[in-house]
Amino acid sequence: MATLEYREEPVAKDPEHVGWLLAATGFFTPEEQKIGISLVEERLLHGLASGYLFVFMEEDGMPVGYTCYGPIPGTLDGFDLYWIAIDPKMQGRGLGRQLLGFTEKRVFGQGGKRLYAETSSTGKYLPTRVFYEHNGFVLEGRLADYYAPRDDKMLYVKQLG
Amino acid sequence: MATLEYREEPVAKDPEHVGWLLAATGFFTPEEQKIGISLVEERLLHGLASGYLFVFMEEDGMPVGYTCYGPIPGTLDGFDLYWIAIDPKMQGRGLGRQLLGFTEKRVFGQGGKRLYAETSSTGKYLPTRVFYEHNGFVLEGRLADYYAPRDDKMLYVKQLG
Repeated sequence: MATLEYREEPVAKDPEHVGWLLAATGFFTPEEQKIGISLVEERLLHGLASGYLFVFMEEDGMPVGYTCYGPIPGTLDGFDLYWIAIDPKMQGRGLGRQLLGFTEKRVFGQGGKRLYAETSSTGKYLPTRVFYEHNGFVLEGRLADYYAPRDDKMLYVKQLG
Repeated sequence: MATLEYREEPVAKDPEHVGWLLAATGFFTPEEQKIGISLVEERLLHGLASGYLFVFMEEDGMPVGYTCYGPIPGTLDGFDLYWIAIDPKMQGRGLGRQLLGFTEKRVFGQGGKRLYAETSSTGKYLPTRVFYEHNGFVLEGRLADYYAPRDDKMLYVKQLG
Protein backbone atom coordinates (compact mmCIF):
# COMPACT_ATOMS: atom_id res chain seq x y z
CA MET A 1 0.00 0.00 0.00
CA ALA A 2 1.56 3.27 -1.17
CA THR A 3 1.94 6.06 1.37
CA LEU A 4 1.38 9.69 0.43
CA GLU A 5 3.38 12.20 2.41
CA TYR A 6 3.79 15.96 2.45
CA ARG A 7 7.10 17.69 3.03
CA GLU A 8 7.59 21.44 3.29
CA GLU A 9 11.31 21.89 3.91
CA PRO A 10 13.12 21.93 0.56
CA VAL A 11 16.23 19.77 0.24
CA ALA A 12 19.14 19.86 -2.21
CA LYS A 13 17.49 17.30 -4.52
CA ASP A 14 14.30 19.34 -4.97
CA PRO A 15 15.38 21.61 -7.85
CA GLU A 16 16.09 18.44 -9.83
CA HIS A 17 12.79 16.84 -8.77
CA VAL A 18 10.83 19.97 -9.65
CA GLY A 19 12.57 20.17 -13.03
CA TRP A 20 11.66 16.56 -13.64
CA LEU A 21 8.01 17.07 -12.60
CA LEU A 22 7.59 20.21 -14.71
CA ALA A 23 9.14 18.51 -17.76
CA ALA A 24 7.06 15.35 -17.23
CA THR A 25 3.79 17.27 -17.42
CA GLY A 26 4.69 18.25 -21.00
CA PHE A 27 2.92 21.46 -20.17
CA PHE A 28 5.61 24.01 -19.40
CA THR A 29 8.06 25.58 -21.83
CA PRO A 30 11.80 25.17 -21.09
CA GLU A 31 11.85 28.82 -19.98
CA GLU A 32 8.93 28.23 -17.59
CA GLN A 33 10.64 25.11 -16.23
CA LYS A 34 13.77 27.15 -15.54
CA ILE A 35 11.74 29.72 -13.61
CA GLY A 36 10.04 26.97 -11.59
CA ILE A 37 13.40 25.44 -10.71
CA SER A 38 14.94 28.83 -9.89
CA LEU A 39 12.30 29.47 -7.20
CA VAL A 40 13.35 26.30 -5.34
CA GLU A 41 16.97 27.39 -5.65
CA GLU A 42 16.05 30.86 -4.33
CA ARG A 43 14.42 29.23 -1.34
CA LEU A 44 17.40 26.95 -0.66
CA LEU A 45 19.70 29.98 -0.88
CA HIS A 46 17.71 32.58 1.05
CA GLY A 47 15.34 30.53 3.23
CA LEU A 48 11.94 31.96 4.12
CA ALA A 49 13.19 35.46 3.22
CA SER A 50 12.86 34.31 -0.40
CA GLY A 51 9.08 34.53 0.02
CA TYR A 52 8.66 31.11 -1.60
CA LEU A 53 6.97 28.33 0.33
CA PHE A 54 6.57 24.77 -0.90
CA VAL A 55 4.56 21.63 -0.42
CA PHE A 56 6.16 18.52 -1.89
CA MET A 57 3.87 15.52 -2.23
CA GLU A 58 5.69 12.19 -2.20
CA GLU A 59 4.61 8.59 -2.60
CA ASP A 60 7.01 6.05 -1.13
CA GLY A 61 9.63 8.79 -1.07
CA MET A 62 9.28 9.64 -4.76
CA PRO A 63 8.08 13.10 -5.91
CA VAL A 64 4.50 13.06 -7.15
CA GLY A 65 3.67 16.74 -7.22
CA TYR A 66 4.33 20.08 -5.58
CA THR A 67 3.01 23.56 -4.99
CA CYS A 68 4.94 26.80 -4.68
CA TYR A 69 3.13 29.65 -2.95
CA GLY A 70 3.80 32.66 -0.76
CA PRO A 71 2.45 35.74 0.97
CA ILE A 72 1.91 38.72 -1.34
CA PRO A 73 4.11 41.62 -0.19
CA GLY A 74 2.11 44.75 0.62
CA THR A 75 -1.08 42.82 1.38
CA LEU A 76 -2.49 42.03 4.81
CA ASP A 77 -3.54 38.45 4.14
CA GLY A 78 -3.25 37.62 0.44
CA PHE A 79 -1.22 34.66 -0.84
CA ASP A 80 -0.24 33.74 -4.38
CA LEU A 81 -0.28 30.16 -5.68
CA TYR A 82 2.73 30.38 -8.00
CA TRP A 83 2.95 26.78 -9.17
CA ILE A 84 1.07 23.53 -8.91
CA ALA A 85 2.15 20.39 -10.78
CA ILE A 86 1.34 16.69 -10.56
CA ASP A 87 3.21 13.85 -12.25
CA PRO A 88 1.01 13.02 -15.28
CA LYS A 89 1.32 9.29 -14.52
CA MET A 90 -0.46 9.99 -11.22
CA GLN A 91 -3.16 12.28 -12.57
CA GLY A 92 -6.85 11.33 -12.36
CA ARG A 93 -6.60 10.12 -8.75
CA GLY A 94 -7.56 13.43 -7.14
CA LEU A 95 -3.99 14.10 -6.03
CA GLY A 96 -4.08 17.67 -7.33
CA ARG A 97 -7.15 18.40 -5.23
CA GLN A 98 -5.50 16.84 -2.15
CA LEU A 99 -2.28 18.76 -2.69
CA LEU A 100 -4.18 22.01 -3.20
CA GLY A 101 -6.29 21.32 -0.09
CA PHE A 102 -3.18 20.73 2.02
CA THR A 103 -1.59 23.91 0.64
CA GLU A 104 -4.73 25.94 1.41
CA LYS A 105 -4.67 24.71 5.02
CA ARG A 106 -1.08 25.83 5.33
CA VAL A 107 -1.89 29.24 3.84
CA PHE A 108 -4.80 29.64 6.23
CA GLY A 109 -2.62 28.52 9.15
CA GLN A 110 -0.24 31.36 8.31
CA GLY A 111 -3.03 33.94 8.34
CA GLY A 112 -3.87 33.84 4.64
CA LYS A 113 -7.48 34.71 3.86
CA ARG A 114 -7.39 34.63 0.07
CA LEU A 115 -5.35 32.52 -2.34
CA TYR A 116 -4.79 33.95 -5.83
CA ALA A 117 -3.95 31.98 -8.96
CA GLU A 118 -3.30 33.36 -12.42
CA THR A 119 -3.51 31.53 -15.70
CA SER A 120 -4.08 32.02 -19.39
CA SER A 121 -7.34 32.14 -21.34
CA THR A 122 -6.03 29.93 -24.16
CA GLY A 123 -7.23 26.41 -24.94
CA LYS A 124 -4.03 24.90 -23.60
CA TYR A 125 -4.96 26.09 -20.12
CA LEU A 126 -8.57 24.88 -20.15
CA PRO A 127 -7.72 21.94 -17.82
CA THR A 128 -6.01 24.41 -15.46
CA ARG A 129 -9.05 26.69 -15.40
CA VAL A 130 -11.42 23.75 -14.91
CA PHE A 131 -9.22 22.53 -12.05
CA TYR A 132 -9.37 25.91 -10.30
CA GLU A 133 -13.09 26.32 -10.88
CA HIS A 134 -13.84 22.79 -9.58
CA ASN A 135 -11.82 23.60 -6.48
CA GLY A 136 -13.55 26.74 -5.31
CA PHE A 137 -11.67 29.40 -7.20
CA VAL A 138 -13.66 32.25 -8.73
CA LEU A 139 -12.63 34.29 -11.77
CA GLU A 140 -12.34 37.82 -10.41
CA GLY A 141 -10.57 39.62 -13.24
CA ARG A 142 -9.43 39.26 -16.81
CA LEU A 143 -6.76 41.32 -18.58
CA ALA A 144 -7.19 41.26 -22.36
CA ASP A 145 -4.19 40.30 -24.53
CA TYR A 146 -1.98 40.27 -21.42
CA TYR A 147 0.39 37.44 -22.37
CA ALA A 148 0.01 37.93 -26.13
CA PRO A 149 -2.75 38.88 -28.59
CA ARG A 150 -5.89 36.81 -27.71
CA ASP A 151 -4.08 35.34 -24.70
CA ASP A 152 -5.69 36.96 -21.68
CA LYS A 153 -4.63 36.80 -18.06
CA MET A 154 -7.29 35.13 -15.90
CA LEU A 155 -7.22 36.18 -12.25
CA TYR A 156 -8.72 33.60 -9.89
CA VAL A 157 -9.22 33.90 -6.15
CA LYS A 158 -10.34 31.48 -3.47
CA GLN A 159 -11.62 32.68 -0.11
CA LEU A 160 -10.14 30.54 2.65
CA GLY A 161 -11.53 29.41 6.00
CA MET B 1 15.38 79.49 -17.03
CA ALA B 2 15.36 76.03 -15.46
CA THR B 3 16.22 73.10 -17.69
CA LEU B 4 14.39 69.77 -17.40
CA GLU B 5 16.40 66.73 -18.35
CA TYR B 6 15.82 63.00 -18.46
CA ARG B 7 18.41 60.45 -17.48
CA GLU B 8 18.00 56.68 -17.73
CA GLU B 9 21.29 55.27 -16.50
CA PRO B 10 21.18 54.98 -12.70
CA VAL B 11 24.19 56.28 -10.77
CA ALA B 12 25.42 55.61 -7.23
CA LYS B 13 23.58 58.64 -5.84
CA ASP B 14 20.16 57.52 -7.12
CA PRO B 15 19.10 55.23 -4.25
CA GLU B 16 19.52 58.24 -1.95
CA HIS B 17 17.69 60.56 -4.35
CA VAL B 18 14.84 58.10 -4.76
CA GLY B 19 14.59 57.66 -0.99
CA TRP B 20 14.46 61.43 -0.63
CA LEU B 21 11.78 61.80 -3.35
CA LEU B 22 9.61 59.03 -1.92
CA ALA B 23 9.87 60.46 1.60
CA ALA B 24 9.19 64.01 0.36
CA THR B 25 5.86 63.01 -1.18
CA GLY B 26 4.61 62.07 2.30
CA PHE B 27 2.74 59.37 0.48
CA PHE B 28 4.71 56.17 0.95
CA THR B 29 5.20 54.18 4.15
CA PRO B 30 8.79 53.58 5.32
CA GLU B 31 8.42 49.97 4.13
CA GLU B 32 7.30 51.12 0.68
CA GLN B 33 10.18 53.62 0.53
CA LYS B 34 12.63 50.81 1.29
CA ILE B 35 11.20 48.71 -1.57
CA GLY B 36 11.44 51.67 -3.95
CA ILE B 37 15.09 52.22 -2.99
CA SER B 38 15.91 48.51 -3.20
CA LEU B 39 14.83 48.41 -6.86
CA VAL B 40 17.42 51.07 -7.75
CA GLU B 41 20.04 49.11 -5.81
CA GLU B 42 19.02 45.91 -7.65
CA ARG B 43 19.51 47.72 -10.93
CA LEU B 44 22.92 49.11 -9.92
CA LEU B 45 23.98 45.61 -8.83
CA HIS B 46 22.57 43.50 -11.66
CA GLY B 47 22.16 45.93 -14.56
CA LEU B 48 19.37 45.37 -17.08
CA ALA B 49 19.09 41.73 -15.94
CA SER B 50 17.35 43.15 -12.85
CA GLY B 51 14.34 43.87 -15.08
CA TYR B 52 14.08 47.40 -13.63
CA LEU B 53 14.30 50.38 -15.94
CA PHE B 54 14.28 53.99 -14.81
CA VAL B 55 13.62 57.51 -15.97
CA PHE B 56 15.04 60.19 -13.71
CA MET B 57 13.73 63.71 -14.29
CA GLU B 58 16.10 66.45 -13.20
CA GLU B 59 15.90 70.21 -13.11
CA ASP B 60 19.27 71.96 -13.08
CA GLY B 61 20.81 68.65 -12.06
CA MET B 62 18.51 68.15 -9.05
CA PRO B 63 16.09 65.19 -8.88
CA VAL B 64 12.50 66.24 -9.52
CA GLY B 65 10.82 62.88 -10.12
CA TYR B 66 11.33 59.40 -11.47
CA THR B 67 9.62 56.34 -12.86
CA CYS B 68 10.57 52.71 -12.44
CA TYR B 69 9.16 50.31 -15.02
CA GLY B 70 10.01 47.10 -16.82
CA PRO B 71 8.93 44.35 -19.20
CA ILE B 72 6.60 41.76 -17.64
CA PRO B 73 8.26 38.32 -17.78
CA GLY B 74 6.17 35.76 -19.65
CA THR B 75 4.37 38.38 -21.73
CA LEU B 76 5.03 39.28 -25.35
CA ASP B 77 4.74 43.05 -25.03
CA GLY B 78 3.42 44.03 -21.61
CA PHE B 79 5.25 46.45 -19.32
CA ASP B 80 4.60 47.32 -15.68
CA LEU B 81 4.86 50.85 -14.33
CA TYR B 82 6.19 50.03 -10.86
CA TRP B 83 6.72 53.52 -9.45
CA ILE B 84 6.11 57.12 -10.36
CA ALA B 85 6.92 59.98 -8.01
CA ILE B 86 7.28 63.75 -8.33
CA ASP B 87 8.74 66.11 -5.75
CA PRO B 88 5.64 67.67 -4.12
CA LYS B 89 7.21 71.15 -4.36
CA MET B 90 7.16 70.71 -8.14
CA GLN B 91 3.65 69.28 -8.45
CA GLY B 92 0.92 71.15 -10.33
CA ARG B 93 3.19 72.01 -13.28
CA GLY B 94 2.31 68.97 -15.37
CA LEU B 95 5.67 67.33 -14.68
CA GLY B 96 4.05 63.98 -13.84
CA ARG B 97 2.31 63.95 -17.20
CA GLN B 98 5.57 64.84 -18.99
CA LEU B 99 7.53 62.19 -17.09
CA LEU B 100 4.86 59.57 -17.80
CA GLY B 101 4.78 60.56 -21.48
CA PHE B 102 8.55 60.20 -21.78
CA THR B 103 8.40 56.82 -20.03
CA GLU B 104 5.63 55.62 -22.36
CA LYS B 105 7.72 56.56 -25.39
CA ARG B 106 10.61 54.53 -24.00
CA VAL B 107 8.32 51.54 -23.34
CA PHE B 108 6.94 51.74 -26.87
CA GLY B 109 10.46 52.07 -28.28
CA GLN B 110 11.33 48.80 -26.59
CA GLY B 111 8.35 47.01 -28.14
CA GLY B 112 5.88 47.56 -25.31
CA LYS B 113 2.25 47.68 -26.43
CA ARG B 114 0.54 47.99 -23.08
CA LEU B 115 1.60 49.67 -19.84
CA TYR B 116 0.05 48.36 -16.61
CA ALA B 117 -0.27 50.26 -13.35
CA GLU B 118 -1.74 48.99 -10.11
CA THR B 119 -3.04 51.03 -7.23
CA SER B 120 -5.42 50.93 -4.31
CA SER B 121 -9.13 51.78 -4.18
CA THR B 122 -8.83 53.76 -0.94
CA GLY B 123 -9.31 57.51 -0.61
CA LYS B 124 -5.59 58.08 -0.12
CA TYR B 125 -4.99 56.93 -3.70
CA LEU B 126 -7.73 59.03 -5.32
CA PRO B 127 -5.13 61.49 -6.75
CA THR B 128 -3.20 58.52 -8.15
CA ARG B 129 -6.31 57.08 -9.83
CA VAL B 130 -7.30 60.50 -11.18
CA PHE B 131 -3.76 60.93 -12.54
CA TYR B 132 -3.91 57.60 -14.38
CA GLU B 133 -7.42 58.19 -15.69
CA HIS B 134 -6.51 61.68 -16.94
CA ASN B 135 -3.52 60.20 -18.73
CA GLY B 136 -5.23 57.55 -20.82
CA PHE B 137 -5.23 54.61 -18.43
CA VAL B 138 -8.37 52.48 -18.24
CA LEU B 139 -9.49 50.44 -15.24
CA GLU B 140 -9.49 46.87 -16.52
CA GLY B 141 -9.83 44.86 -13.33
CA ARG B 142 -10.50 45.17 -9.62
CA LEU B 143 -9.63 42.60 -6.93
CA ALA B 144 -11.79 43.02 -3.83
CA ASP B 145 -10.07 43.33 -0.43
CA TYR B 146 -6.73 42.59 -2.07
CA TYR B 147 -4.48 44.78 0.08
CA ALA B 148 -6.74 44.65 3.14
CA PRO B 149 -10.47 44.60 3.91
CA ARG B 150 -12.15 47.34 1.78
CA ASP B 151 -8.82 48.08 0.11
CA ASP B 152 -9.13 46.74 -3.42
CA LYS B 153 -6.45 46.40 -6.06
CA MET B 154 -7.21 48.53 -9.11
CA LEU B 155 -5.66 47.27 -12.34
CA TYR B 156 -5.12 49.96 -14.94
CA VAL B 157 -3.83 49.56 -18.47
CA LYS B 158 -2.84 52.02 -21.18
CA GLN B 159 -2.60 50.97 -24.82
CA LEU B 160 0.51 52.48 -26.38
CA GLY B 161 1.24 53.71 -29.89
